[in-house]
Amino acid sequence: MLSVTSNLTHVQQGGSKIILKYAGKDATQEYDPIHPPDAIENNLPPEKHLGPVEPNTVEKVEVRITDEEMARQERMSNRPPLDEILNLHDFESIARQVMPEKAWAYYSSAADDEITHRENHSAYHRIWFRPQILVDVTKVDWSTRILGHKSSMPVYITATALGKLGHPDGELNLTRAAARHNVIQMIPTLASCSFDEIVDAAQPGQVQFLQLYVNKDRNITKRLVQHAEQRGIKGLFITVDAPQLGRREKDMRMKFTAEDPSEVVKSGSDGIDRSQGAARAISDALKAYDLGLAGVVLSNHGGRQLDFARSGVEVLVEVVTNLKQKRGLSFPNDKFQLFVDGGVRRATDVIKAIALGATAVGIGRPFIYAFSSYGEQGVDKALKILQDEFEMNMRLIGAKSIQDITPDMVDATNISSHIASTPTDRLYDSNYESMQHAKLREIKSKM
Amino acid sequence: MLSVTSNLTHVQQGGSKIILKYAGKDATQEYDPIHPPDAIENNLPPEKHLGPVEPNTVEKVEVRITDEEMARQERMSNRPPLDEILNLHDFESIARQVMPEKAWAYYSSAADDEITHRENHSAYHRIWFRPQILVDVTKVDWSTRILGHKSSMPVYITATALGKLGHPDGELNLTRAAARHNVIQMIPTLASCSFDEIVDAAQPGQVQFLQLYVNKDRNITKRLVQHAEQRGIKGLFITVDAPQLGRREKDMRMKFTAEDPSEVVKSGSDGIDRSQGAARAISDALKAYDLGLAGVVLSNHGGRQLDFARSGVEVLVEVVTNLKQKRGLSFPNDKFQLFVDGGVRRATDVIKAIALGATAVGIGRPFIYAFSSYGEQGVDKALKILQDEFEMNMRLIGAKSIQDITPDMVDATNISSHIASTPTDRLYDSNYESMQHAKLREIKSKM
Amino acid sequence: MLSVTSNLTHVQQGGSKIILKYAGKDATQEYDPIHPPDAIENNLPPEKHLGPVEPNTVEKVEVRITDEEMARQERMSNRPPLDEILNLHDFESIARQVMPEKAWAYYSSAADDEITHRENHSAYHRIWFRPQILVDVTKVDWSTRILGHKSSMPVYITATALGKLGHPDGELNLTRAAARHNVIQMIPTLASCSFDEIVDAAQPGQVQFLQLYVNKDRNITKRLVQHAEQRGIKGLFITVDAPQLGRREKDMRMKFTAEDPSEVVKSGSDGIDRSQGAARAISDALKAYDLGLAGVVLSNHGGRQLDFARSGVEVLVEVVTNLKQKRGLSFPNDKFQLFVDGGVRRATDVIKAIALGATAVGIGRPFIYAFSSYGEQGVDKALKILQDEFEMNMRLIGAKSIQDITPDMVDATNISSHIASTPTDRLYDSNYESMQHAKLREIKSKM
Amino acid sequence: MLSVTSNLTHVQQGGSKIILKYAGKDATQEYDPIHPPDAIENNLPPEKHLGPVEPNTVEKVEVRITDEEMARQERMSNRPPLDEILNLHDFESIARQVMPEKAWAYYSSAADDEITHRENHSAYHRIWFRPQILVDVTKVDWSTRILGHKSSMPVYITATALGKLGHPDGELNLTRAAARHNVIQMIPTLASCSFDEIVDAAQPGQVQFLQLYVNKDRNITKRLVQHAEQRGIKGLFITVDAPQLGRREKDMRMKFTAEDPSEVVKSGSDGIDRSQGAARAISDALKAYDLGLAGVVLSNHGGRQLDFARSGVEVLVEVVTNLKQKRGLSFPNDKFQLFVDGGVRRATDVIKAIALGATAVGIGRPFIYAFSSYGEQGVDKALKILQDEFEMNMRLIGAKSIQDITPDMVDATNISSHIASTPTDRLYDSNYESMQHAKLREIKSKM
Repeated sequence: MLSVTSNLTHVQQGGSKIILKYAGKDATQEYDPIHPPDAIENNLPPEKHLGPVEPNTVEKVEVRITDEEMARQERMSNRPPLDEILNLHDFESIARQVMPEKAWAYYSSAADDEITHRENHSAYHRIWFRPQILVDVTKVDWSTRILGHKSSMPVYITATALGKLGHPDGELNLTRAAARHNVIQMIPTLASCSFDEIVDAAQPGQVQFLQLYVNKDRNITKRLVQHAEQRGIKGLFITVDAPQLGRREKDMRMKFTAEDPSEVVKSGSDGIDRSQGAARAISDALKAYDLGLAGVVLSNHGGRQLDFARSGVEVLVEVVTNLKQKRGLSFPNDKFQLFVDGGVRRATDVIKAIALGATAVGIGRPFIYAFSSYGEQGVDKALKILQDEFEMNMRLIGAKSIQDITPDMVDATNISSHIASTPTDRLYDSNYESMQHAKLREIKSKM
Repeated sequence: MLSVTSNLTHVQQGGSKIILKYAGKDATQEYDPIHPPDAIENNLPPEKHLGPVEPNTVEKVEVRITDEEMARQERMSNRPPLDEILNLHDFESIARQVMPEKAWAYYSSAADDEITHRENHSAYHRIWFRPQILVDVTKVDWSTRILGHKSSMPVYITATALGKLGHPDGELNLTRAAARHNVIQMIPTLASCSFDEIVDAAQPGQVQFLQLYVNKDRNITKRLVQHAEQRGIKGLFITVDAPQLGRREKDMRMKFTAEDPSEVVKSGSDGIDRSQGAARAISDALKAYDLGLAGVVLSNHGGRQLDFARSGVEVLVEVVTNLKQKRGLSFPNDKFQLFVDGGVRRATDVIKAIALGATAVGIGRPFIYAFSSYGEQGVDKALKILQDEFEMNMRLIGAKSIQDITPDMVDATNISSHIASTPTDRLYDSNYESMQHAKLREIKSKM
Repeated sequence: MLSVTSNLTHVQQGGSKIILKYAGKDATQEYDPIHPPDAIENNLPPEKHLGPVEPNTVEKVEVRITDEEMARQERMSNRPPLDEILNLHDFESIARQVMPEKAWAYYSSAADDEITHRENHSAYHRIWFRPQILVDVTKVDWSTRILGHKSSMPVYITATALGKLGHPDGELNLTRAAARHNVIQMIPTLASCSFDEIVDAAQPGQVQFLQLYVNKDRNITKRLVQHAEQRGIKGLFITVDAPQLGRREKDMRMKFTAEDPSEVVKSGSDGIDRSQGAARAISDALKAYDLGLAGVVLSNHGGRQLDFARSGVEVLVEVVTNLKQKRGLSFPNDKFQLFVDGGVRRATDVIKAIALGATAVGIGRPFIYAFSSYGEQGVDKALKILQDEFEMNMRLIGAKSIQDITPDMVDATNISSHIASTPTDRLYDSNYESMQHAKLREIKSKM
Repeated sequence: MLSVTSNLTHVQQGGSKIILKYAGKDATQEYDPIHPPDAIENNLPPEKHLGPVEPNTVEKVEVRITDEEMARQERMSNRPPLDEILNLHDFESIARQVMPEKAWAYYSSAADDEITHRENHSAYHRIWFRPQILVDVTKVDWSTRILGHKSSMPVYITATALGKLGHPDGELNLTRAAARHNVIQMIPTLASCSFDEIVDAAQPGQVQFLQLYVNKDRNITKRLVQHAEQRGIKGLFITVDAPQLGRREKDMRMKFTAEDPSEVVKSGSDGIDRSQGAARAISDALKAYDLGLAGVVLSNHGGRQLDFARSGVEVLVEVVTNLKQKRGLSFPNDKFQLFVDGGVRRATDVIKAIALGATAVGIGRPFIYAFSSYGEQGVDKALKILQDEFEMNMRLIGAKSIQDITPDMVDATNISSHIASTPTDRLYDSNYESMQHAKLREIKSKM
């Protein structure tokens, strides 16, 4: 059983407004994607459980299919076949067109001016390769071990929230595709599916990790950890640095535009006590090592928390230098493993992180976009693309195995220069939906 | 009573042309927004006071409501509700659409090619965070003391001119909202409202500062200071570095386009003797300290004076280093306080300045845009947004109080590199109205 | 006879799908541009040779001229006269409009996000001149010797594949124009014309080099080399660093759009055993020198292999420093010559590479675009433009001969900073066709 | 009498084609703007002088006024009044619209990719101010002495060719406005007006310099210098680094588009022997000093010669350092004066150059654009704008006189970083007409 820091994202849970809106009506359709099946049992005290509802006593909420929704469904039916998806960028481009606007806004948004969110990707563009060309690359092997567990590539599926917003099967899409590719899934605390559903969906022997917030009530945490252990979870990733929910304006903006301002809940009102948690938990790469933890994730939560936080891969360079000077460690290191996440779109991004000392890299949004546009097959294809890219690029940089990827194979001199690098990433840039100002009402109505 | 340098902006006061234009007519409507009620008493020698005008002897200036004005008023009525304003950028975006063109041109313009004006904001984008994650941030407190006076945040409302151009209540909007948020207002010399009106509008105990030009006639200055002291002003900010009015071409250009070239008055003709003042006043951060002043404002006057002057926050880094090496000071410092202004749009900008040694940060234009589009409620909302952003970001950087914001929490290595940083600030950039060339007459008439 | 590393590009050769598509039909038109005439003899074992086909027994494949093809042919007839072609950029601009879409996609595409492809050119834009102005430049001479052979300029035509995609005469266009300008052509392994055709097209005394992959079967390689020697080939460029075919998505994307997904063959399926080859061959500038080779080409294969590989000219600076420090060499050096290719568009680019130590520079795509739009005359004009540019710029930098182009004549300080340089290259940038995402089917059909 | 290096630009003079075109016809209209009145006497041997033509024996060349010309004349009549011209950028914007296309192309074009041309301006944007604020700037004086002669500002009108292309009075517009402002004009060798016409137009006591190419025939040069001396020329600027005419493709391109490809003359065919000249002349800042010259101009000829030559102001920094280290000189220096030209648009640009050691700055194109759009009054206004900008900015940087402008008042740390600086110069950028590719004929005809 292992403890490491991880990234985590959140959604606001209902306030009184949303309850009043659906009072006396069947709210299942609205409730489902944002609450796991066991949410009521786990979060509501037993005395508040009133029992099942008599279906014919509730007013049916008539589902109006708007013109926008019709148009969206038509776009969905016009998705290109999966064969035409050539890279992870493509999933995002399709998802943006075929996802419900609300789901897209929730997944794609980030904190403040979304500087950190974009920096996560652009940081990788400041790292260049120095390939080796003296190597017999007939056979290349990019499989590795993450916290001692086999993984077909130095990548894991990181924890992201509310999978059902993008697809009815939610996180199960990830579980199933992960099984087929021998890739490890990190189960999020705030999944749409329940923890047990996700574990049940796993194949025998499939490795899963769990992401966890520390709860003020230590007993709750204890129960969760014991249950996870019983169900065979192999790694625990404790989030210690999300004391408050980031303010994601693009998400807020879309809600005003789309429908119901009452949904724009004040940040922080999600029932999880983050402020307490952070103080009691451990953190910081150095402390983590001294406390005997198995590793640490260098993450800024996909740019959804503190804007102008630096990218994981930039911090990685600093942490590796630090741990080398102060603890004499070298990386990758089996005893104390470093992970980064955020902004990864190509196997070359992963290889760069490995060269700089990471054991593996977490990928989140690209998999969400994959299942939001193509379900489980989308995730399968995304992993297949990564496998193809790994094979090709392991050969091209001259590395026969993950161990051969060494620091001298990359030039990261400019990693701390947050300046416009060249050439530009056309696919990433055209996917990025620019932030928008508040709009006059008349203008909005015409758009 | 305190003396510190401050930023200041100016407007041209009437020349002979404007007087001839309204000769024998009622010019109140044109006169009001750009002259405080006591302007005649304070500036015109008593022998020039001819007494009140008999209203029915003057020719009424018929107010034509142009199509453009009709369109503007319609846009005004279509402002989004304040709930949809998510950040300070939003106010500027709305203000640009609902303000009279002339007022917008006056407020938004800056010197020459407006390089310094934009640099003020972009400088903050070259500073990145190194958050602390070991801190109990259950309770965070971002209140502070500015020159010994309590402020609910390390921000003050800096002096800007001609508030009535944007809203009939002018600077009073600021006074009233400042009271509600316990924020300090700096009263500008060139306000549309009179000094006494602004002081009268204050709540009991509300702290106000005064911005002051040094006048060639020392007696006038002396009277002003004594009067301010009597009225309870707690700080005096003396402007020593605005020897000549900056040339703001965007403002000049709009006047040609909009109406009357005769309004484009030669720079420098505003009756205030700046050239004399500057020589007699004290300045320079080092001198200011040696002279026993309470602090200094590092300002380039919102980019309205010398183009290619560096941003306040860049100069801050230099000044802090300087005062450390030569006087052994450390910052923030209660005995000698540093302030910066210009380009601030987010609480994270303020936090960066605090980390680098500032005691507080002056904000000007965003508040003008707030009341120009929503009156007093706009300023209230702007301050509320800042409070929200402070709460969230204090937590996210791991600072329980202002004292916890230390230099090691930011990376300002690139502050002096005036290069295209990445990622770009989409909200700021789309708000910026690009400068325009002179236009052919036919082209102009068609636009 | 000489051995040096060189760049090489590839095309996928037929799989079963394409064979089934044309089964029983005359596939000549499809087959010709992508197979040299001797492909069957050289690659198919004799027992698979079934003899000639009786023409009237095969079903004619009716050639439909699509509207797109009609439009393309009209564009072809509207090419500007060669007089109006002022620089190498112009050929690319015309070629893009008059080439078959498929051919354009094949030539213009590069690996992954095409970062390295564009960096190849932009690297030259980070090198600036320090001209000499004390020189009598009445007569300037930019002829040189490449591996001991005279060349009218420090440029050779590098190996690129499948010339018939762009023009029916394929690589012979290059051979003929090279003869007229005393420029050396490097014959590619994967030419559309056969090796012997290309050698036959040469003038008496015309110098040609050969690019070669090392084959697992040493006998095949030996036969090839012996044949090349007999036919008078003066230099052998062995490709040692292309163990796998790069993934060129723009090329893949266009195939989906244009016609037949079955053509998008899995990378690596081209029959050449690259993985073996690399391990057995020699490489690396230092090793190459120690092994007594005559030189080395610093190439990233036109950006078609490893994305984020650095440009040849950046690596050149590193290699020159390295060989100086470790072997005491200075460059240009007759005994061990350095070549670079990729991104060259101007004689000034070449002069920069010479100043930094290269003996000559390989140019590929610009010549392809030249003959694809104007046949042999296009290449002739391209070489003429280079000659004109050399004459002018030799004078302007103050160099009477190639030997006078010294390191102190350039400032390459920023060569390793992969940042947006200024001013921008408008011609290059507007030629670059941005990468595209996968598209919805309906959208595609409308475009 | 003084000798310094200067910038110079050229036009191609007639070949046989143009002579044949007008054979037997009256070619005055075509001939006039590109030849000074004394061109025939000075350049044609006496035996070729056939005497005056009998007017009624020549075929009149009917002047067709094209639709384009009609449109241009209408634009000319719609110029905004001079009052609306606020800066030097404005002249360029108007000139571009009201000048004959050919004249615009000739003046605005530069070498190759016009990198150096644009760098000339952008270099100034990498220099920032550190103003002094302790100075009594009641009176500021920006007059200076250039080579011992009084000038009302540290600016001179540099030599540019073919003034009549832009305005019938050609260079005389400059002479007359220069007189009114006490600014020195440098008379170009390749003026449209003759040397004597320009000298005749000067006021008594008006200082003029002369720009000179060294001629192979020393007697011609001697005669020119003696004549100049007799006519009262106070400074001689010898061009030593223009051994060949730069290739200005934008100019060439426009000629194809506009009219007559026969005008696109091969570069170098202008009758002046530059290749000889350069070798015999002196140059180089160090040599110039050692030879006892009075100064040197650091120029890249407006970006019209060697592309990727660095800007004058960047070279200035290097030269000043060099002359300090090797000859112990400090700058500005009366005994050996440094001048720069290229890219100047604002008084702040000039002040930056002065701070870095220049005595004065040459301005060329902006004055051409001024008289091309508004004749003499345009130049007068341009100089007035500069005077206004000097007054304001001398005050704002805190300099009472030119002597007070010291190196510590600027930060030029990034001068050698040729990277995208921020914020961008909107006026300059929108004036810049991007280079264009060769175009298909049909496309061209439609545009």
